[in-house]
Amino acid sequence: MLERDSVTSGRLGVIRTPHGEARTPLFMPVGTLATVKSMRPGQVSDLGFEMVLANAYHLWLRPGVDTVAGLGGLHRFMGWDGAVLTDSGGFQVFSLGGDVRVTEEGASFRSHLDGSKVFMSPDSSMEVQHGLGADIAMAFDECLPYPAERPRVESSVRLNLSWARRCLDAHHGGPQALFGIIQGGLHEDLRSRSAMETVALGFDGYGLGGLSVGEPREATLEMVELCCGIVPDSDPRYLMGVGDAIGIAEAVALGVDMFDCVLPTRLARNASALVGTGRINMRNAAFATDGGPLAWGCDCYACSRFTRAYIRHLVVSNEILGAHLLTTHNLRQVALLMEDLKRAVAEGRLEGFVRDLKNAERPQ
Amino acid sequence: MLERDSVTSGRLGVIRTPHGEARTPLFMPVGTLATVKSMRPGQVSDLGFEMVLANAYHLWLRPGVDTVAGLGGLHRFMGWDGAVLTDSGGFQVFSLGGDVRVTEEGASFRSHLDGSKVFMSPDSSMEVQHGLGADIAMAFDECLPYPAERPRVESSVRLNLSWARRCLDAHHGGPQALFGIIQGGLHEDLRSRSAMETVALGFDGYGLGGLSVGEPREATLEMVELCCGIVPDSDPRYLMGVGDAIGIAEAVALGVDMFDCVLPTRLARNASALVGTGRINMRNAAFATDGGPLAWGCDCYACSRFTRAYIRHLVVSNEILGAHLLTTHNLRQVALLMEDLKRAVAEGRLEGFVRDLKNAERPQ
Repeated sequence: MLERDSVTSGRLGVIRTPHGEARTPLFMPVGTLATVKSMRPGQVSDLGFEMVLANAYHLWLRPGVDTVAGLGGLHRFMGWDGAVLTDSGGFQVFSLGGDVRVTEEGASFRSHLDGSKVFMSPDSSMEVQHGLGADIAMAFDECLPYPAERPRVESSVRLNLSWARRCLDAHHGGPQALFGIIQGGLHEDLRSRSAMETVALGFDGYGLGGLSVGEPREATLEMVELCCGIVPDSDPRYLMGVGDAIGIAEAVALGVDMFDCVLPTRLARNASALVGTGRINMRNAAFATDGGPLAWGCDCYACSRFTRAYIRHLVVSNEILGAHLLTTHNLRQVALLMEDLKRAVAEGRLEGFVRDLKNAERPQ
Repeated sequence: MLERDSVTSGRLGVIRTPHGEARTPLFMPVGTLATVKSMRPGQVSDLGFEMVLANAYHLWLRPGVDTVAGLGGLHRFMGWDGAVLTDSGGFQVFSLGGDVRVTEEGASFRSHLDGSKVFMSPDSSMEVQHGLGADIAMAFDECLPYPAERPRVESSVRLNLSWARRCLDAHHGGPQALFGIIQGGLHEDLRSRSAMETVALGFDGYGLGGLSVGEPREATLEMVELCCGIVPDSDPRYLMGVGDAIGIAEAVALGVDMFDCVLPTRLARNASALVGTGRINMRNAAFATDGGPLAWGCDCYACSRFTRAYIRHLVVSNEILGAHLLTTHNLRQVALLMEDLKRAVAEGRLEGFVRDLKNAERPQ
């Protein structure tokens, strides 16, 4: 850890990977199918990102691990020189798969692509992530929906610890890091137990899973704080699936180092632009003749060259360039936030920064 | 005209516009709605293009001329620093409009967007193209389907000459050039008459219209040769809607200077890559593990960084990047062809170049 904020638990760090260093706190743009949608890989790094997330489940089903491995691994396949973290597939099995059946062995389910019956286990997930050549692999976990009954959460925590052990056993090691995932729903004792026992197994870092799945923000933050108190200072903490500005900032203040979320890129493809802590819908007729940029003060390619009117014209015409420009802008907004957060930590003023962010007015 | 080929009628030239010079023979990527689909404008110029085509009809309906004019004109609106030629809308009225009724006054029809009744005339087309701020405006013309009966073609030639006069009268002049359009179907005498009388009116250049609409290639070339014999050497000749490699090369050898076509960009969005004088369908399972580039020897971004396997993965997954990479490649292929053609003319070996191109084998 390079530096810590003097008041909050915010901290700066560096994650060293076989594909370069990634400074934390960091946000990973999501490249589910080995592409950050609509972006050239060089554009993603130019925006300020050093690590992207790809999805083991999706790539396992299509184009297949052997294909990617045969072409030199995920980095070469997708032309990305930076670091790659792969999601284990656990979340997708439970959110996308049909007829999911979980046993101690693993999860059997139907592919979201063609309905064929498939089976994924801690062992096969490790194989897949090894074959893809991820810099950071994630443990295969069961991710419960919210809300979930206590007995269900309890047995899931037990199952996940068993799977975590199997992931460690099956992990090839070498240059690939392996992160455990802390579950436990919103039950303090179960979350604590999951955190302590997962940490005791000794991973290279820890995902905070099963959060940001519909629960109130306060509850998320309580669980984040609890986990950050248990994961050793020296280990990266990764809050999975959080990507809104205030959510990221509050979690950074609690000691979280890593984030990923489809939000900025998905919003872009749905014609929404991130502006401050809010968003504007570019389909809105109010922007039809608006000669201003998406966001004043933004240095992104879209804001420095195009008007809201032009971007609205593109999105109402379903032009690909509209999705690309909005993706560029939204990702740059998140990159700028991460830079601001790093600066605030370095200068010991993270508390005020987060407060100001929460008090900021919604955009026009 | 800078140079001429010693054997064919091929020639090199420069078109000077308020937005820079454009060397001929040139190809204009089509940016119908003020965007070359999926491309940043800087990427289009980096590929080697100096002029793009936009569509007066489409932009008139959406976002509207006042909007574009109010934002500083088409170049600023779309962030394109090079030259822009606008299609008059004639072709689109007749191909996209519903219930088209043509009178001496103009064409009334239903908008392809919302079915509303609209009217376009030589005068209003000139207004629209002036408002958009095109470097080169095209005369508003009636474009007949192929095949068309002789009496129909005859009266259309007469109408187009009348409309051509009205375009000249309504044209604002100033820095904007105005090109007439030669019609006349495949009837030599009507084509000749259209060419001679349009030339007699005195435009800045001449479009060869109503060709490449389904007629045999030989017939196209006959009409092109006939027109090129009538249009003065000093004036640009623009073969509208031709974009295949052999079609372009043969027309250049007959003295054509300018081309536009949706082919390279539309093929890209339909997963086809231009390779040599043919194309390959990237959905083909044969490419699933193909580690080679789209085309050997191509210097484009897609070929220099990505495999066929990756691009196939993108297109079967409907990823935006797939359309973008294929568009980049296909446009680069056309740009390289135009460079090759210019070099062949300069070196007096165009005849052999065209012959070799026609004899080239289809790609694997």
